[in-house]
Amino acid sequence: MSGDSRRNRYDHDMSDAASIRLLTPGPTAVPEPVLAELARPVIHHRTAGFRAIFADVSKRLQRLYRTEGPVLTLAGSGTTAFEAAQVSLIGPGRRALTIASGKFGERWQDIYAAHGVEQERLDVPWGSAVTAGEIADALERSPEVDVVTLVVSETSTATMCDLRSIAEVVRKHNVLLIADGITAVGAIPIEMDAWGVDVLVAGSQKALMLPPGLGFVGLGPRALERLERPIALPAYCLDLRRWLESWRKDDVPFTPPISLIRGQQVALEMIETEGLENVWRRSAGLATATRSAFIAMGLDLVSRAPSDSLTGAFYPEGVEDAAFRARLRDAHHIQIAGGQSGRGAKWKGRIMRLSHMGHVDADDTLAALTAIEQELIAAGHDLAPGTAASAARKAGLSA
Amino acid sequence: MSGDSRRNRYDHDMSDAASIRLLTPGPTAVPEPVLAELARPVIHHRTAGFRAIFADVSKRLQRLYRTEGPVLTLAGSGTTAFEAAQVSLIGPGRRALTIASGKFGERWQDIYAAHGVEQERLDVPWGSAVTAGEIADALERSPEVDVVTLVVSETSTATMCDLRSIAEVVRKHNVLLIADGITAVGAIPIEMDAWGVDVLVAGSQKALMLPPGLGFVGLGPRALERLERPIALPAYCLDLRRWLESWRKDDVPFTPPISLIRGQQVALEMIETEGLENVWRRSAGLATATRSAFIAMGLDLVSRAPSDSLTGAFYPEGVEDAAFRARLRDAHHIQIAGGQSGRGAKWKGRIMRLSHMGHVDADDTLAALTAIEQELIAAGHDLAPGTAASAARKAGLSA
Repeated sequence: MSGDSRRNRYDHDMSDAASIRLLTPGPTAVPEPVLAELARPVIHHRTAGFRAIFADVSKRLQRLYRTEGPVLTLAGSGTTAFEAAQVSLIGPGRRALTIASGKFGERWQDIYAAHGVEQERLDVPWGSAVTAGEIADALERSPEVDVVTLVVSETSTATMCDLRSIAEVVRKHNVLLIADGITAVGAIPIEMDAWGVDVLVAGSQKALMLPPGLGFVGLGPRALERLERPIALPAYCLDLRRWLESWRKDDVPFTPPISLIRGQQVALEMIETEGLENVWRRSAGLATATRSAFIAMGLDLVSRAPSDSLTGAFYPEGVEDAAFRARLRDAHHIQIAGGQSGRGAKWKGRIMRLSHMGHVDADDTLAALTAIEQELIAAGHDLAPGTAASAARKAGLSA
Repeated sequence: MSGDSRRNRYDHDMSDAASIRLLTPGPTAVPEPVLAELARPVIHHRTAGFRAIFADVSKRLQRLYRTEGPVLTLAGSGTTAFEAAQVSLIGPGRRALTIASGKFGERWQDIYAAHGVEQERLDVPWGSAVTAGEIADALERSPEVDVVTLVVSETSTATMCDLRSIAEVVRKHNVLLIADGITAVGAIPIEMDAWGVDVLVAGSQKALMLPPGLGFVGLGPRALERLERPIALPAYCLDLRRWLESWRKDDVPFTPPISLIRGQQVALEMIETEGLENVWRRSAGLATATRSAFIAMGLDLVSRAPSDSLTGAFYPEGVEDAAFRARLRDAHHIQIAGGQSGRGAKWKGRIMRLSHMGHVDADDTLAALTAIEQELIAAGHDLAPGTAASAARKAGLSA
């Protein structure tokens, strides 16, 4: 069929969108080769050709995760993948230790609540990271707990916890750790096997440089063993056993987002070409420079244990979030994120957040920091022009 | 960042994929303007720009569904959307009448079984359509039933039931109808509001001309009313109340597959430009011609109540499915589907299926019929060359 019925009414906003630097902590910018891959004709998924692509994506995900175990590719958001892990892995009649220090940790509590799972809730102040010691204490108090849910890099608070020491403590108690690595995997160093992380969830639209639509679940040996037991909570699409069984044949149980999976292959190739450690170093470098620049501009960081995947800062008094970010977008073609709110804090309108994940470099970051500085000055903030860039460069950023 | 790390190793299979006519009943071929849209830069979803796109997609979906009610856009496969309807809409402690006449009807039974819902199972022989009378009888026998699940066009058997009269019967019993329109919506006439269909599920990769990754749930007034009651089964991502609440603000509860939603907007525009009734007529014309051609070639149709969205036929003796379809693909660049199996029949390897949904026209269909004829002759089937095309043309197909 001819496609000439397509009108050109997108021409204007196409040029707009192309010129915007997307520096939000998800969705993140998608590299052109990945976008080009999305535009390729659809192939059928029950074919040797698709299975070869899927097998390659799975192998690359294992290298990204630093694991020999399965990394399942589910259709949906990061939340879909995390809920699947939650419902598939808790023992029948058991309790979950659910740690919240931001909006996403609270969401994982809400999900278990929706499923009627009894919880030991460990609420940590927003901007702080839970410690292995606090988790050890909670586990000693609650011997009937058999799953811990944890956010590695809490996107709402730009805060990171020490996954390695936490995984060690959780294993000692013979409890399963389900870690939300949605804004961590591919951005900050995680060694799934070496650290003994049982379950690690990721999402395509963060450091994986794809549009949203895929969620990933990595499974360690203890998680695999638990999946062989009868499932605790009723599930069908979210039953990881179904995905695992297909994965073993390089296949998926339901018609998958074929185009996104092909795009993910290209994005993972790009990560490997750069080198995963180099990607980690790049994110860390951008984060260090951003924190220095924010502090030099007199902004307070929102986190006392900052993540390297994104940086958050409180607005100074008198700066209005919506207007500020609209100026960044309209006058500077830079899009950053505002704050989120939850039970633990009301940060919507109070903070801004800048991503260091995926397809972003020193030029993008310097452009954002300089624009933020300029708009702070315009808003009456007392600040010498060049402060941000100078601090960022002093912290090692070279563009 | 520069994208020069991307290698060109896809060049060869890119040309292959582009030249293949994809005539499988999902995924179906995606028009070039939709593919081009998928390659556009990602925009953020918590913006006025995205909400405008989403609102437009929702309006167009309502016109496609012929409904004034909400049509929710979920991330995932058609199965995701159907499971969401199943878990969100059954009354607490009630039974479901689950009708199966093929693989997908059986899947909806499996889903309720996974969730521990008691079922009245109505199993119809594969290739037959359930009748309104059979459903009325089943409902009289089971007054405690409050949900009926039904497949409108059963993809595994290329069979269609009379949704209009079934919806009428179900309403008389004050029961809710959850209809799987995954290979029906956009291909065959359905008037959701006029016929009083309570819930209608669709999938992006069928007549909606998008790659897989989106599922749709249309909700009639009785379904909306039921959603106001406490939910029957535990769910979070699959809880339609959460999607409905966001939909009312032209929004989605979780990060959505932004690129696919933009592509869906373009595909829905194309459907409206052609005119929905014209699309229905085109599919029906291709189906009529294909059935005539199959019969003229001496093939037995698999369905006694054929759907117009796809056509299935049994292979004649001595034709081996995998080799036959490989020849179609490799020698003719045409991809059709084989059979599926389930509890009700073992049709894998025994049948072939040809899609009439979405981006397909008389040229595509004639090419497929002619190639099928040629390969049947090559396999020793006694058949005069030109039989298929002549029968198809006699049935009204003009290319």
